[in-house]
Amino acid sequence: MQALILAGGSGTRFWPLSRRARPKQLLALDGENSLLQATVARLEPLIVVADVWVCTTGELADSVAEQLPGVPRSQILAEPAGRNTAAAIGWSVRTMQAAGAGEVVAVLPSDHRVADEDSFRATLAEAERVVVERGPIMTLGIRPRWAETGYGYLELGEVLEEKSGLRRVARFVEKPDAERAREYLEGGRHLWNAGMFVFRSDRLLDALARFQPELSAGLEEIAARPEEIATLYPQLAAISIDFAVMEHLDDLATLPLDCGWSDLGSWEALAEVLPLDSEANSSRGDVIAEDSSGNLLFADEGTIAVVGVNDLVVVRTGESVLVIPKARSQEVRKIVERLRADDRSDLL
Amino acid sequence: MQALILAGGSGTRFWPLSRRARPKQLLALDGENSLLQATVARLEPLIVVADVWVCTTGELADSVAEQLPGVPRSQILAEPAGRNTAAAIGWSVRTMQAAGAGEVVAVLPSDHRVADEDSFRATLAEAERVVVERGPIMTLGIRPRWAETGYGYLELGEVLEEKSGLRRVARFVEKPDAERAREYLEGGRHLWNAGMFVFRSDRLLDALARFQPELSAGLEEIAARPEEIATLYPQLAAISIDFAVMEHLDDLATLPLDCGWSDLGSWEALAEVLPLDSEANSSRGDVIAEDSSGNLLFADEGTIAVVGVNDLVVVRTGESVLVIPKARSQEVRKIVERLRADDRSDLL
Repeated sequence: MQALILAGGSGTRFWPLSRRARPKQLLALDGENSLLQATVARLEPLIVVADVWVCTTGELADSVAEQLPGVPRSQILAEPAGRNTAAAIGWSVRTMQAAGAGEVVAVLPSDHRVADEDSFRATLAEAERVVVERGPIMTLGIRPRWAETGYGYLELGEVLEEKSGLRRVARFVEKPDAERAREYLEGGRHLWNAGMFVFRSDRLLDALARFQPELSAGLEEIAARPEEIATLYPQLAAISIDFAVMEHLDDLATLPLDCGWSDLGSWEALAEVLPLDSEANSSRGDVIAEDSSGNLLFADEGTIAVVGVNDLVVVRTGESVLVIPKARSQEVRKIVERLRADDRSDLL
Repeated sequence: MQALILAGGSGTRFWPLSRRARPKQLLALDGENSLLQATVARLEPLIVVADVWVCTTGELADSVAEQLPGVPRSQILAEPAGRNTAAAIGWSVRTMQAAGAGEVVAVLPSDHRVADEDSFRATLAEAERVVVERGPIMTLGIRPRWAETGYGYLELGEVLEEKSGLRRVARFVEKPDAERAREYLEGGRHLWNAGMFVFRSDRLLDALARFQPELSAGLEEIAARPEEIATLYPQLAAISIDFAVMEHLDDLATLPLDCGWSDLGSWEALAEVLPLDSEANSSRGDVIAEDSSGNLLFADEGTIAVVGVNDLVVVRTGESVLVIPKARSQEVRKIVERLRADDRSDLL
């Protein structure tokens, strides 16, 4: 099995730590390794580093190569432009196929966290077995642990294997409201959609040709005239792999993942996975907290000192300091938008 | 008139900006100049820089000289040890007298703020006139602008001159409770004690000899054997000039100062004198505030960004970040105590 790791994201939800040239997947948020490095490391021994491919942007390719010295440079694929996941996966899989890479591919995000790596690998191995034995495109869904309204869900259909828990995906469900999210959690018939897939290359490319003939033709054109990729690639339709392919499949299958997964989608989500002190402060770096509780204190250099504050995120980097209530940490985007409006590219 | 500026303080209330080697008086808190530089600058043309003397510590003397290139190096006096204001003023005045400096001396703190410099100089000139014409030791009291419980007060006595407002000081009053502070504010018979004095050197030294004979003898010993100052000075009694001399005088006189004075005693006090944005945030440096009000945002380098927070002090220096509610900013000392206990001299 080959791994295809999608590492082209440029999320800003971890500003000021995440920056254009240093996005979330390249950051060490919850350990010594970056999320990208942890993504590769947790695949061993199921998938060795020589079988890892990374799809990223031209701007990030050198940083990715630096962080992953074991991955052959030819397997770090740099998109000329971001065109969403259908193009990224389609182009990468087509490139892997042309290079004679193994037939089974696991597509994995580069910026998520997995606490139980054994369990993660066991389910991934099981997915490989299903793909080899039975042929379907697979997605790995996360067993919900709370009534999350920020994720899309997979609704489960027909049971295909009792023992492994393999089931058909009945349909994709958009982010639910709170009441529906509670129903999904209690009903046991829904999984979080985590954007992880396992498939045979030819099956994915066939499905792309069937449901997105124009995009598929564009990829074949690039394969035929790779020297023109800089002009051809930006013309590809920008559409997610879910919309482009997965939602159209009537035999999409899934296995539930129970692996302490987190998408680390905000400072608040990070606070939930970092160790807590006796006052429920989570921290990284040199931190002093007096009469303060429930804060996330994150210093990538220097020292953070707080007195008498609660439930705040305080982040310090070499360049910038951010202070925001933990429950509002999604609103970091307001700062990023303001910086864009003010043409503060020095801070983006 | 000579100025004697007391610049030996090592206050920690502006941590992390203030540090042992960079105390409050050497900081530019509300303008381009440090408080010490502003203290000297506002004396011109009443007292020229060549007539300025500074009493500081050995550790700070070079920094003081650097900030005040116009002050002759021989007029920057370095105490071998901190022994409170009676020793500092007594030793400095004795040294000035021996050097043949002018007879009238104005003693001024180095870390206060004065908004109305014309008014300040006018009152100081008036005090000089009183000292020359009538001879008493003078203190300049500040006309109270609110019911402050954090300062000592001067209770006013007999009116000595109707026109100038010169009055005798009846007594010194310790920091009052809130009710008494309101009475003082409304009664019009009290001034804030700001630690500013004007006197003739011989009168001050005579008073010291009369009320503190041991301290006075110690100073004479140092004058006789200056090469032994390093062992003699630390033996001087550590006592404030108020306790040592001023409270014992029955002819101490005062003039009220109305000059937009602030002792800048805390981050909160600084917030009150800095300009406000439309959301009542005060700031220095590169600052971005979204949906936030009433904060003091102070960056001596880099950028501070806040979203959704109110009435906080956020300070960023090259080394450290501090976050504390504005109303609790006196409690910075908790951090400083913790740093001392943890032997974190790198941050002190």
